[in-house]
Amino acid sequence: MVYFTYEIVRLLANHPHFGITMMTADRKAGRSIGSVFPHLMAQDLPAMVAIKDADFSDVDAVFCCLPHGTTQEIIKSLPKQLKIVDLSADFRLRNIDEYEEWYGLPHKAPELQKEAVYGLTEVSRDQIRNARLVANPGCYPTSIQLPLVPLIKAGLIELRNIIIDAKSGVSGAGRGAKEANLYTEISEGLHSYGITKHRHVPEIEQGLSDASHSKVTVSFTPHLMPMSRGMQSTIYVEMAPGVTIDDLYQKLLSTYEDEEFVRLLEKGAIPHTRHVRGSNYCFMNVFQDRIPGRAIIISVIDNLVKGASGQALQNLNLMLGFPENIGLNYQPLFP
Amino acid sequence: MVYFTYEIVRLLANHPHFGITMMTADRKAGRSIGSVFPHLMAQDLPAMVAIKDADFSDVDAVFCCLPHGTTQEIIKSLPKQLKIVDLSADFRLRNIDEYEEWYGLPHKAPELQKEAVYGLTEVSRDQIRNARLVANPGCYPTSIQLPLVPLIKAGLIELRNIIIDAKSGVSGAGRGAKEANLYTEISEGLHSYGITKHRHVPEIEQGLSDASHSKVTVSFTPHLMPMSRGMQSTIYVEMAPGVTIDDLYQKLLSTYEDEEFVRLLEKGAIPHTRHVRGSNYCFMNVFQDRIPGRAIIISVIDNLVKGASGQALQNLNLMLGFPENIGLNYQPLFP
Amino acid sequence: MVYFTYEIVRLLANHPHFGITMMTADRKAGRSIGSVFPHLMAQDLPAMVAIKDADFSDVDAVFCCLPHGTTQEIIKSLPKQLKIVDLSADFRLRNIDEYEEWYGLPHKAPELQKEAVYGLTEVSRDQIRNARLVANPGCYPTSIQLPLVPLIKAGLIELRNIIIDAKSGVSGAGRGAKEANLYTEISEGLHSYGITKHRHVPEIEQGLSDASHSKVTVSFTPHLMPMSRGMQSTIYVEMAPGVTIDDLYQKLLSTYEDEEFVRLLEKGAIPHTRHVRGSNYCFMNVFQDRIPGRAIIISVIDNLVKGASGQALQNLNLMLGFPENIGLNYQPLFP
Amino acid sequence: MVYFTYEIVRLLANHPHFGITMMTADRKAGRSIGSVFPHLMAQDLPAMVAIKDADFSDVDAVFCCLPHGTTQEIIKSLPKQLKIVDLSADFRLRNIDEYEEWYGLPHKAPELQKEAVYGLTEVSRDQIRNARLVANPGCYPTSIQLPLVPLIKAGLIELRNIIIDAKSGVSGAGRGAKEANLYTEISEGLHSYGITKHRHVPEIEQGLSDASHSKVTVSFTPHLMPMSRGMQSTIYVEMAPGVTIDDLYQKLLSTYEDEEFVRLLEKGAIPHTRHVRGSNYCFMNVFQDRIPGRAIIISVIDNLVKGASGQALQNLNLMLGFPENIGLNYQPLFP
Repeated sequence: MVYFTYEIVRLLANHPHFGITMMTADRKAGRSIGSVFPHLMAQDLPAMVAIKDADFSDVDAVFCCLPHGTTQEIIKSLPKQLKIVDLSADFRLRNIDEYEEWYGLPHKAPELQKEAVYGLTEVSRDQIRNARLVANPGCYPTSIQLPLVPLIKAGLIELRNIIIDAKSGVSGAGRGAKEANLYTEISEGLHSYGITKHRHVPEIEQGLSDASHSKVTVSFTPHLMPMSRGMQSTIYVEMAPGVTIDDLYQKLLSTYEDEEFVRLLEKGAIPHTRHVRGSNYCFMNVFQDRIPGRAIIISVIDNLVKGASGQALQNLNLMLGFPENIGLNYQPLFP
Repeated sequence: MVYFTYEIVRLLANHPHFGITMMTADRKAGRSIGSVFPHLMAQDLPAMVAIKDADFSDVDAVFCCLPHGTTQEIIKSLPKQLKIVDLSADFRLRNIDEYEEWYGLPHKAPELQKEAVYGLTEVSRDQIRNARLVANPGCYPTSIQLPLVPLIKAGLIELRNIIIDAKSGVSGAGRGAKEANLYTEISEGLHSYGITKHRHVPEIEQGLSDASHSKVTVSFTPHLMPMSRGMQSTIYVEMAPGVTIDDLYQKLLSTYEDEEFVRLLEKGAIPHTRHVRGSNYCFMNVFQDRIPGRAIIISVIDNLVKGASGQALQNLNLMLGFPENIGLNYQPLFP
Repeated sequence: MVYFTYEIVRLLANHPHFGITMMTADRKAGRSIGSVFPHLMAQDLPAMVAIKDADFSDVDAVFCCLPHGTTQEIIKSLPKQLKIVDLSADFRLRNIDEYEEWYGLPHKAPELQKEAVYGLTEVSRDQIRNARLVANPGCYPTSIQLPLVPLIKAGLIELRNIIIDAKSGVSGAGRGAKEANLYTEISEGLHSYGITKHRHVPEIEQGLSDASHSKVTVSFTPHLMPMSRGMQSTIYVEMAPGVTIDDLYQKLLSTYEDEEFVRLLEKGAIPHTRHVRGSNYCFMNVFQDRIPGRAIIISVIDNLVKGASGQALQNLNLMLGFPENIGLNYQPLFP
Repeated sequence: MVYFTYEIVRLLANHPHFGITMMTADRKAGRSIGSVFPHLMAQDLPAMVAIKDADFSDVDAVFCCLPHGTTQEIIKSLPKQLKIVDLSADFRLRNIDEYEEWYGLPHKAPELQKEAVYGLTEVSRDQIRNARLVANPGCYPTSIQLPLVPLIKAGLIELRNIIIDAKSGVSGAGRGAKEANLYTEISEGLHSYGITKHRHVPEIEQGLSDASHSKVTVSFTPHLMPMSRGMQSTIYVEMAPGVTIDDLYQKLLSTYEDEEFVRLLEKGAIPHTRHVRGSNYCFMNVFQDRIPGRAIIISVIDNLVKGASGQALQNLNLMLGFPENIGLNYQPLFP
């Protein structure tokens, strides 16, 4: 069970048009959501049912929060009229071979893969509107593509040597009982993990390659932070010849000035992960590096909201014809 | 500047009927709220003004978040048609002498004190509806009175030797730059503070004395926790002769079963502060102690919401004739 | 595997006379300690061996850090010339029936139980010096008995209604991979646990009953804190008729003024858990309660040191004829 | 007052040859160290004196822990026979102009500057042995130079585009009461700070330029972590043509295999800040980047120990003719 599952439940509690008709579970089938997540006990929700007992006759749309590798077959079996936002990684990579290489599993629904739309909302809004199946982006790829895609599309940064030092709260690892994620193992310290091998790499490279129409290889090193929520990507890039930091700033400004959830801060202001906690915002900014010709790009999100459930709801709003911000007016919780 | 000031701003962002017309500030007058609290930058709010420049002609109601000792005179000077919820301690104690004893200051608005209604919503809902000035309760007193007042009114617990071991996150101390509240001084440790001298004592005793129609003296020891938000009161009491733990449970059940924000957990379930974080809920339960005839009562709140700004908004909703839960549908943020 | 196992390794690194000849392990047999606990990698230590392969011919003393229930038979099988400090609960309760009731297991070494000495160093120093098998006290019982035993022996406090509100860091729960102890489940919140049922209860009551020569029943409610190390017991007592808070202070002063590890703070000074972190100290103090005739007693320890491994080493020093403070000169780590 | 001041006191408590004769203070003159830092109360130390009342007749060596800008004149006035380790930044930069540019102050002791030895122990051990005045390195520069200096000296990495993403616990900011360092402002979030402007930049560049005999400009972005102690530098470099990751590993291995405090981990093992907490160790490792020809270098230290007080004591040991590890046998405190 992963934390973003019930993060969707939290968000839906404020949605004026969507209601939760059914929640499925595996070992916890039969239980109330409040018994598994007491912070949701005040909501009046149906008990969880086993997926084999699920009745979809009264359902318009599904958020699919299953582990990668199990999702492809299940989605294949769902009624065709359902709108689906899949929060797993199972439909994010268009290249089936790449999926099999990074996840070590054969892809079980290649025909569905062709139909799936990658759900980075601000980048692919129009395709999402018309999609039946949206592959919701990973948290790291969201925080990285939002600033980089428009800069790459405009040819403002070099494609070589894009170096991403990313930092994430531990909620991204889910609720599985692992020694490495105990309080005592995480608190008051930090470490890198998954160096060169993190499974978000092909997703990031797919997005940047699409933007540049060429093959991009990135350096991506994630770090586990002593905190539950929050994610920062600090991105070190070379600017294209003649490009200035102000060009980068203006490009991001023109791209996002009318967006509700992506915010370019005032010049010089430094984004903090704590300032977006619990909300669907992405805050970003760009800085001139000390080395001439280089720039530092910082973006922060809440990994469970804009990095997962919030963006999923934003996408479903679009898929069902609603304004994308409906139900997403949770302001950041600070401190 | 205290954290609950902008916690009200966060809550009001979701309110369908209330809007923020004006915010006053002292040293920060002239600045935008987003420059002081970047997590609120996405909201479109007026710049803060000095209180001397405040124009109340367009204002229906005021949340007053000033330090104790300064509030009495300022409220005295406000236009009479305004509804006011005061979050300071300045109007909480009906007994002027007691105020002067615990706060070391002369009371500057004794006539207003007579008018002020103590705003523990679930206990004094009817008076609050008709009040012009509500003295919003302190965080500790809220968490303590909600379970104790109905039990005392029903004569189910003894008035002697009520022992309250309370635990609070550090946000209650406000945003003042004090060495004692640095991250390095708070993280990974705990300590008691204000032993026998905490200023919430007379407020707690006033409430319990009112409920019992006799003078109650409590043992109250607060502890500072290595966390930002959250408050638990663990209360050790003697049951009246012949009373059982089930009597206590049933009394709390009948008192609160129709309340939205006060929730008695299922028998045996232990409240956690993290399960109410960011929300206006109070979760509580009662337990048979190992010593016969004794009970342990636990209640948890978010000190900035039900312990301050959330209850303030709940009260203002009532004062202006709205359902009390409007704008308070923020579900708890966990983890 | 529990954290206090390698806390002993940390402490022994500074011991001038003791060296580690052998470490046993179960599933991790064959591995180096540095591969399991990288923070110990700089020490030159033998690889861990399975207990069945252990050769005790070169061993003078053993710290036994096994789970309760498995320890009795293993210790029974050890060579008789070994000095043993057992950190489990298996030999702490003199009353076999009580062990079986609280641990739900038959006692497998009742004859050894008779020989075992309860190792609260400052209270039973002389018996420990001559012991072959020491049952090392639990963390809560250590923090509670150190202040209460001398006060009870002197008849200064009432035996009825001793109320103990205890707070512990999560390292006491060991390194087992449990959902409840994940960072995300512990950080920034607190809760009570084991209400009336914690297994340290009979150990606490045994110690206080011994001190008073009568049966004592206590109210004991532990709370899990968002921190790794540290423990505070806040103890609410009635003073005996005519006794003052100064009498309590003087009694603790005369009891502990020559002790190295138990420190009564100056009058009015409040103990903090962070001020003993990583050290073998117990800091304590007493306070007049607001209710006349009552006192509040606070003691703090590091649960892994004075509450486990530090006291174990203190005891072994005595058993082998060394000054008890040898190897225990780690000063507290703050912040 | 900074945290590393009393970190020296903690370390000296275990030193067999050094004792504390005198401690000076400013506003806290006259007070005991235990009243300012209760975790040190168990040590028997002289009360602090004002620096004007200091009597150096009985003093062999001084640790100078004053703010930058005030240190130069004070050290100039000290008796010439004293050995001095200065933990401020006042004597770290050989180039007086650079000091004045980055610190905005005229240098008040340029002649002393010529005499000062930069105290990166493993790099400059021989000069330190003969020094009277050692400028103790900053925390970031220590964590960065230890891996980079030998690699640069050996010509294994390119000097262009060295990108350093550094992460530090908040104790590095000292104990000053600043809003930005409150628990509520730091917990459960992170942010970059001092982008391109951090004062450790010229110190880092000085060290790398010395190693390469050419002017090196680095990209250096520090991040503030929600933790008290610990520092990681994640360093992204290009390898020189034909150089492999194994060449880097072997160079670091041969450089540090006989060092007590600098440890190259086994291939593939990832350093964690928590594994060096409270100790004088630096753990490091190198990793092949995903982009061919690039390497990722990670080093971790405790910013208050190897990054300040521990290295200072290591240096003073050398200056006074003792083995450098005396008194530094504190093993890491985990968890």
